[in-house]
Amino acid sequence: MALSKTALWARFQQSYVEHPSIGLALDLSRVDFPDGFLATMAVPAGRAFAAMEALEKGAIANPDENRMVGHYWLRNPALAPTPALRAEIEETNAALKAFAADVHAGTIHGADGTFRNVLVIGIGGSALGPQFVANALGQPKADKITPYFFDNTDPDGIDRTLARLDGQLGRTLVVVISKSGGTPETRNGMLEAKAAYERAGLSFGAHAVAVTGVGSKMDQYAIQNGWLKRFPMWDWVGGRTSETSAVGLLPAALQGIDIDGFLAGAKACDEVTRVADAAKNPAMRLALAWYFLTEGRGARDMVVLPYKDRLELFSKYLQQLVMESLGKELDLDGRVVNQGIAVYGNKGSTDQHAYLQQLREGVPNFFAVLVEVLQERTGPSIEVEPGATSGDFLGGFLLGTRDALYEKGRQSVTLTVRDVSPSSVGVLIALFERAVGFYASLVRINAYHQPGVEAGKKAAAGVLSLQSRGIEFLRANAGKSFTADALAGALGAADQAEPLFKILTRLAANGRGVKVTGGAGTQAAFAAA
Amino acid sequence: MALSKTALWARFQQSYVEHPSIGLALDLSRVDFPDGFLATMAVPAGRAFAAMEALEKGAIANPDENRMVGHYWLRNPALAPTPALRAEIEETNAALKAFAADVHAGTIHGADGTFRNVLVIGIGGSALGPQFVANALGQPKADKITPYFFDNTDPDGIDRTLARLDGQLGRTLVVVISKSGGTPETRNGMLEAKAAYERAGLSFGAHAVAVTGVGSKMDQYAIQNGWLKRFPMWDWVGGRTSETSAVGLLPAALQGIDIDGFLAGAKACDEVTRVADAAKNPAMRLALAWYFLTEGRGARDMVVLPYKDRLELFSKYLQQLVMESLGKELDLDGRVVNQGIAVYGNKGSTDQHAYLQQLREGVPNFFAVLVEVLQERTGPSIEVEPGATSGDFLGGFLLGTRDALYEKGRQSVTLTVRDVSPSSVGVLIALFERAVGFYASLVRINAYHQPGVEAGKKAAAGVLSLQSRGIEFLRANAGKSFTADALAGALGAADQAEPLFKILTRLAANGRGVKVTGGAGTQAAFAAA
Repeated sequence: MALSKTALWARFQQSYVEHPSIGLALDLSRVDFPDGFLATMAVPAGRAFAAMEALEKGAIANPDENRMVGHYWLRNPALAPTPALRAEIEETNAALKAFAADVHAGTIHGADGTFRNVLVIGIGGSALGPQFVANALGQPKADKITPYFFDNTDPDGIDRTLARLDGQLGRTLVVVISKSGGTPETRNGMLEAKAAYERAGLSFGAHAVAVTGVGSKMDQYAIQNGWLKRFPMWDWVGGRTSETSAVGLLPAALQGIDIDGFLAGAKACDEVTRVADAAKNPAMRLALAWYFLTEGRGARDMVVLPYKDRLELFSKYLQQLVMESLGKELDLDGRVVNQGIAVYGNKGSTDQHAYLQQLREGVPNFFAVLVEVLQERTGPSIEVEPGATSGDFLGGFLLGTRDALYEKGRQSVTLTVRDVSPSSVGVLIALFERAVGFYASLVRINAYHQPGVEAGKKAAAGVLSLQSRGIEFLRANAGKSFTADALAGALGAADQAEPLFKILTRLAANGRGVKVTGGAGTQAAFAAA
Repeated sequence: MALSKTALWARFQQSYVEHPSIGLALDLSRVDFPDGFLATMAVPAGRAFAAMEALEKGAIANPDENRMVGHYWLRNPALAPTPALRAEIEETNAALKAFAADVHAGTIHGADGTFRNVLVIGIGGSALGPQFVANALGQPKADKITPYFFDNTDPDGIDRTLARLDGQLGRTLVVVISKSGGTPETRNGMLEAKAAYERAGLSFGAHAVAVTGVGSKMDQYAIQNGWLKRFPMWDWVGGRTSETSAVGLLPAALQGIDIDGFLAGAKACDEVTRVADAAKNPAMRLALAWYFLTEGRGARDMVVLPYKDRLELFSKYLQQLVMESLGKELDLDGRVVNQGIAVYGNKGSTDQHAYLQQLREGVPNFFAVLVEVLQERTGPSIEVEPGATSGDFLGGFLLGTRDALYEKGRQSVTLTVRDVSPSSVGVLIALFERAVGFYASLVRINAYHQPGVEAGKKAAAGVLSLQSRGIEFLRANAGKSFTADALAGALGAADQAEPLFKILTRLAANGRGVKVTGGAGTQAAFAAA
């Protein structure tokens, strides 16, 4: 099934396309497109171009939520559909740059002096982009401000980050990011941080900034508590496509990253990927490769392997962008389609030592996206063998793995960028944002909503309410013991014995007002402690 | 398809099994086993128990490489098949504890004083375990020594870690881990570290320790260069099951982690999972769940979601353990089976905001392994809502997500541990090691070799050799320009035009003796610079 090296070179010459204006090349030579595949896709690709054009002009591209989808305007405000929106974007970007400059200059400072750290509190779309960019573009010991994150509601995880910041809160700026302003994990993280500032005798509000929708709960809270500053989020920017909004720009600017270069890279990539010619458009070529490789129904996972440590978090970033956008039950006509593409990966050549064994020999349920970075390092290299550097090995492993996979019929796509810079990271983000948008059109789904996320949140809220009722009942019946079954019955919620058992087991393990008085396993008896 | 909550509670009561001696519970209530499934698996499960027993007694369990498989002896040396092996294990563990104590006491120290940092250089099985344990059990600012890692051959990645250690190399101990002693990434990292020590005017050998096979290239190098100490690796310990050998124990002991507790946890779990009764053995129950959920052929991916930040790297650790062990082309009879289970994940509830949308609504190509940790944090918690802590939300999200998935027919397994401690981390590692071994028996593959990894390495070596020849030719023909095609022809390697093009493009981008003199894309002409 695999082609000879000579035939591959011929195919490479046809399917390797450089885009010098954005320092990008896309190689589809290891995708076994049948003859005429592009031609067969001309109609759906044309529809995808048209849908994207309408979206960029301000159509309600997210009909379920009756929203425009405007992340492309963020890096080219001139494209925004109204002068008011354009002005809002431009003013926000100017305001956050001015704010970062004031922070760097010490004009805006903490209780103990110039800010040295920024604690970003957010989750999902409000954490993955900032984390990816901070890791890709940060310079240890040379960043203007060192970033830390709360990206969960794990008390121990919060304590670990606070331990790292011990004694430094008076020089730590807190950026709380929540588009809706009502995400419980973020609210919890904010309250935990506030408590830590208060334990240290510091005013939390004097160290806090909000990035949130105007008028949201978080926004009101920030106003009431005299926070340093608020930056807006808009309903036409989805969390997973918010990295070029204040969500991504504010933490990056504070860290000292060149956000103008970042936005310029994204804008330039948008221009290249706006061209309505599938053969010349790297985002459409990528989307068509995904369509072929996954049979338009997620039949294969996407394994993302950037050969560069700085891009280690790119696969996590893409996991959200791709899976939350494409993982949908219904298509645009309401038919059940269970779409999506599973994404995982880490970095090469490291991952070759973890699971190349399975990729080459095991279940053939994936394709790979290899990311090559031409620049090895900024300074000169030592030779680790005569004439060879560590970077030559990294490059050799990329090519070797690509071939080792293809020999076994495992297909791959290779992206090449010149370096990891603000501009190239902007290019990569914009490229995948648009590829995801195109792919969603090809398979006829709404890429911009996330109806499946609510169910877990509602179920969790039910668990918390059950916990309150359970504890209240045990307290009111102090001295008496109840199995989960008995307690469920007593609460008039006979079908809730299982969650009650799980809740009480956890509370008892933490000494939180409940103890086990006898029995074992699911027959354990619980009482107020 | 999904059961009512009352029916689920009945099933939970049957399929939730606590193992108090190791602080573990395994809940298979969200696995839709058909009636009598366990009975139908009695014969293969019996064979798996027998194979494991033989392995533990010293059989050649890895026949392709003619090796014993002895990771279970590492935590219970009394089980080793010979007194000599037992003594080697015990002596090594005693020696590494004594070494760590000397380092902590400052008896063994760096050029600038007591060691404060340890730089671990390794990849794959020599990095994933140490990274997982360092992250799970480390205490920021309270660790005796702070760990850093080189886990790749990326020059820029190496520079970033060296920047973090700038000015501190004289108080940094380097632990180089390579079982074979010939892994190029590790060798490169060691040479890059050595160069950094020399630039700082320090003796590398006086700060270096090796963990490697006795007599390996690395071992000889360490002897010749007067390194501080060497610790042995044995051919009967595979890289991916080496966390309870010196590979994992030395970095952990240096960091100040209780390795006796860690080994005791693994040993206790081995005892529980040695019981040849499928219904009572959590490792066999886990393996049988995988078998049912993946139809014994990797039909679904395993999404690992520990609800605890400290376990964030567990999925990466399991990715290697599971995929490298199970991802095999051939079964024990040499038939092509393309086995394996793809593993990915990160942590809850964070990942709910990244890809729960797809898990609940999208391609139903996975099952989830949820890991619950009962202990919320070590100190008291604030209330983030009346009566509720951040930990209550974390617990609520776990249960909510498990139900939101199951409502849509997405199955899951839930593991519960009391805390994240040396003992419980030992339990988790031992549990999955044995589950993987059992599963390999169920599907009749060799879990202990990795024949597919060599191909990528050989191909990479070919690329490096081609690079040398290409550069040499360009230098010998200085002033003349060649396309990749022309150069391949001139080298008598007409089928190597593609890798030559890739190599020369990268070298030119780095100003490394090659320049582009004209042409574009695959027709670019290259010359010596």
